[in-house]
Amino acid sequence: MSTKLKHIRHAPEDNRESDVDSTHLAEAEQTDLVKSLALSFRENEPESAKLLVSHIHSADLADVFELLDGQTRKWLTNLLRDSLDPDLLPELEGQAFDDVISVLDTSEIAEAVTSLDMDDAVYVLDEIGSSKQQQDVLDTIAVDERILIEQAFTYPQDSAGRMMQKNFIAVPSFWTVAQTIDYLRSEEKLCKDFWEIFVVDPQHHPVGTMPLSWILRSETDVKMSDIMAVEQSLIPVEMDKEEVVYSFRQYNLVSAAVVDYAGRLVGMITVDDIVDVMEEEAEEDILALAGVREGDVNISIGEIARTRFGWLLVNLGTAIMASVVIAMFGADIEKLVALAILMPIVASMGGNAGTQTMAVTVRALASKEITPANAHRIVGKEFIVSLINGVLLAAIMGIFAGVWFDNTQLGLVIAAAMVINLAVAGLSGILVPLGLDKLEIDPAVSSSVFVTTITDVIGFLAFLGLAAVFLI
Amino acid sequence: MSTKLKHIRHAPEDNRESDVDSTHLAEAEQTDLVKSLALSFRENEPESAKLLVSHIHSADLADVFELLDGQTRKWLTNLLRDSLDPDLLPELEGQAFDDVISVLDTSEIAEAVTSLDMDDAVYVLDEIGSSKQQQDVLDTIAVDERILIEQAFTYPQDSAGRMMQKNFIAVPSFWTVAQTIDYLRSEEKLCKDFWEIFVVDPQHHPVGTMPLSWILRSETDVKMSDIMAVEQSLIPVEMDKEEVVYSFRQYNLVSAAVVDYAGRLVGMITVDDIVDVMEEEAEEDILALAGVREGDVNISIGEIARTRFGWLLVNLGTAIMASVVIAMFGADIEKLVALAILMPIVASMGGNAGTQTMAVTVRALASKEITPANAHRIVGKEFIVSLINGVLLAAIMGIFAGVWFDNTQLGLVIAAAMVINLAVAGLSGILVPLGLDKLEIDPAVSSSVFVTTITDVIGFLAFLGLAAVFLI
Repeated sequence: MSTKLKHIRHAPEDNRESDVDSTHLAEAEQTDLVKSLALSFRENEPESAKLLVSHIHSADLADVFELLDGQTRKWLTNLLRDSLDPDLLPELEGQAFDDVISVLDTSEIAEAVTSLDMDDAVYVLDEIGSSKQQQDVLDTIAVDERILIEQAFTYPQDSAGRMMQKNFIAVPSFWTVAQTIDYLRSEEKLCKDFWEIFVVDPQHHPVGTMPLSWILRSETDVKMSDIMAVEQSLIPVEMDKEEVVYSFRQYNLVSAAVVDYAGRLVGMITVDDIVDVMEEEAEEDILALAGVREGDVNISIGEIARTRFGWLLVNLGTAIMASVVIAMFGADIEKLVALAILMPIVASMGGNAGTQTMAVTVRALASKEITPANAHRIVGKEFIVSLINGVLLAAIMGIFAGVWFDNTQLGLVIAAAMVINLAVAGLSGILVPLGLDKLEIDPAVSSSVFVTTITDVIGFLAFLGLAAVFLI
Repeated sequence: MSTKLKHIRHAPEDNRESDVDSTHLAEAEQTDLVKSLALSFRENEPESAKLLVSHIHSADLADVFELLDGQTRKWLTNLLRDSLDPDLLPELEGQAFDDVISVLDTSEIAEAVTSLDMDDAVYVLDEIGSSKQQQDVLDTIAVDERILIEQAFTYPQDSAGRMMQKNFIAVPSFWTVAQTIDYLRSEEKLCKDFWEIFVVDPQHHPVGTMPLSWILRSETDVKMSDIMAVEQSLIPVEMDKEEVVYSFRQYNLVSAAVVDYAGRLVGMITVDDIVDVMEEEAEEDILALAGVREGDVNISIGEIARTRFGWLLVNLGTAIMASVVIAMFGADIEKLVALAILMPIVASMGGNAGTQTMAVTVRALASKEITPANAHRIVGKEFIVSLINGVLLAAIMGIFAGVWFDNTQLGLVIAAAMVINLAVAGLSGILVPLGLDKLEIDPAVSSSVFVTTITDVIGFLAFLGLAAVFLI
């Protein structure tokens, strides 16, 4: 019995012609499809390529586009340009997006953007790198749609205003359930899928939320104001998207009203957009901790090299700093070469212990599990933890080094250096991200270079310094 | 103008008494609240503590519980036991959960569990560590509810069966919209919030999905089978929760039907649970890459030390391995101490470059951006990227070392060693996670120890080996 997701294509009332059964692409099928498309490109068989991708869900097709090499991707875009599903565009990112856009002309992009939800339209325009092309596309869009999109661009990057849809449903609080249902049935231009409607006062301030299930389960003659949920999570239009995500998670929201500076309802954010933002944020954090700014596997080699080089250069600088510390003890190393052999152990154990504490701290800060309310208690805990593990590991390493080099004093020196360095590692692993967070610098991005520099320098200094005093 | 989320407590029809306006807890308010509660505990003022937490949303209260120290947490639980909101329990995790449960007695836990949705009830029972207490609670629950919960436990850990709710709505496909609405209005025992209903055939196989907005916008005399979405993402009951998350993201789902081995509808998963799982997974990945098994800041010091020790011990082993490599060149280091000074640079640059590639690969594997369809192309890319950055950084370091020690040959040797080690780092950074993934070992957990061991050993070996041949 397979655990494969059965994904069956839909046939909603408005496009019944797409009533085709097709299953979600399993990995093997996807791999075969990518290979077949590459073959069709090489053998220049456009008809077979078109046949291969017909009936593929736009989200799955986007994945296939991202797996193709650039040339095949552009060739396929050109083949599909007349029948391109607009929903494909917001599913693409990075290089794959750029390649597809480079093939389409301005009017085709404008047409696709017009048929998208506002949040998706804003995403697509935002992803178009050149501001000239962005403007050209905007100029081609009908004026009423254009005004809405341009308004979204007045909100700060990464704000709720950029994420929200304009296509929401609001009704006055004095309406009855029957009036609301009549309105929903008669009004042509409503969005297709919605989960909650908002209840507003005459100034268009949201005063309540009404999940559709409540409307369906209420008597038809009661007023909205009598049954609506007065609990509302109102998202200010300029709220940062990380905070928006936090609100959705915290209060298990499905959709939320977005309000402008005057508290008026101006948009709606739905949970499917939140899921996408969460995925991005998680990716950013993991990559940032490893010193990578961009994780798109489709960008060019030169671009990838550039996104990695800066971090490596910074680390070269800090590695040289650590070497300068070692150089101060050159004469001691000449006398006792065991110091050179053992010193990387002290530094690397400090680095590992510091990274552990740092990763926990960065995550706990992001999920608000560390706040000013408990920070001092957790710093104390981490310090004691690093002392405990420091003493245990130092004992093991001290005995091992003492036996290896038949030198008890050397064993004692490395043990002492390890206790010192692991304690420093524990403290810097928590204090560095806390400090950066207080300075409003993203701790995920900058913590690890500070922490490893500290543990390298202190590691070499403690071990070689103690050796110079007690051994040489 | 504040970007604070305004969170106003709700008053749904069934508990209008809680009709109180209260705002979402901003960080400063939360900090004050935690301090005030700790003070109330110290001065033994139960009434003021109760007043402080009245009207706090259960999700916010859970955060406050997690920020309190253990003693205050237990004291507060005891104060609130008679009025405890059952929704608090599924919002808690780790030590905070354990502390609260330790105060409550079996019948209180059973009562709370009974009033929760099935997925939350399963979570709470699952989090109860002792299987005896778990059984005691189960035995106290009414038999019909108990059977449902026990059935959920027959599904594998981390499977869709454990996440799903039993409280979904299914209607036959021959019903009209009017019949469906009548049913929704008249049936007493439906769940409160739902977003889609499922359409089933006589064998209870799901044949379509109906978003509530479609029901509200359709004519009342049409049949469900004529308007339902035939597109369905059916989740097999034993599907792993990571795959479930992937499906929700991929197809922008709000809820999905869960089907058993025979394809019959047995449950429903909603997107708010997906959001929680995503958060967990992101946390697990970040912590795993840093070698931490458990990120709960509330567990005891001994427990934290234990969750970190294993990884540090493994790394001590690999650090010693690297030292053994250095020891092979002890005589060379005695002759040229510059080798000892420079060798950590070669190893550490390899480690950093390898970690960059590894983080990108682990993420791309998790989000299915690397699959067998494009893996070979990306391995080739990473190798070339690491050569480019290797050559650039080697040139910088070679010149620097040549000048520092006034030794051109030393500069050439360290440059050559860096090119070799960065190329090895790039390759191992992608091949190790790909290989582990193929062996079905989580690449996030085990990659970094392999990668850093390889880059340490090759770093020392290449630099000291080349030096031994060309310099000494």
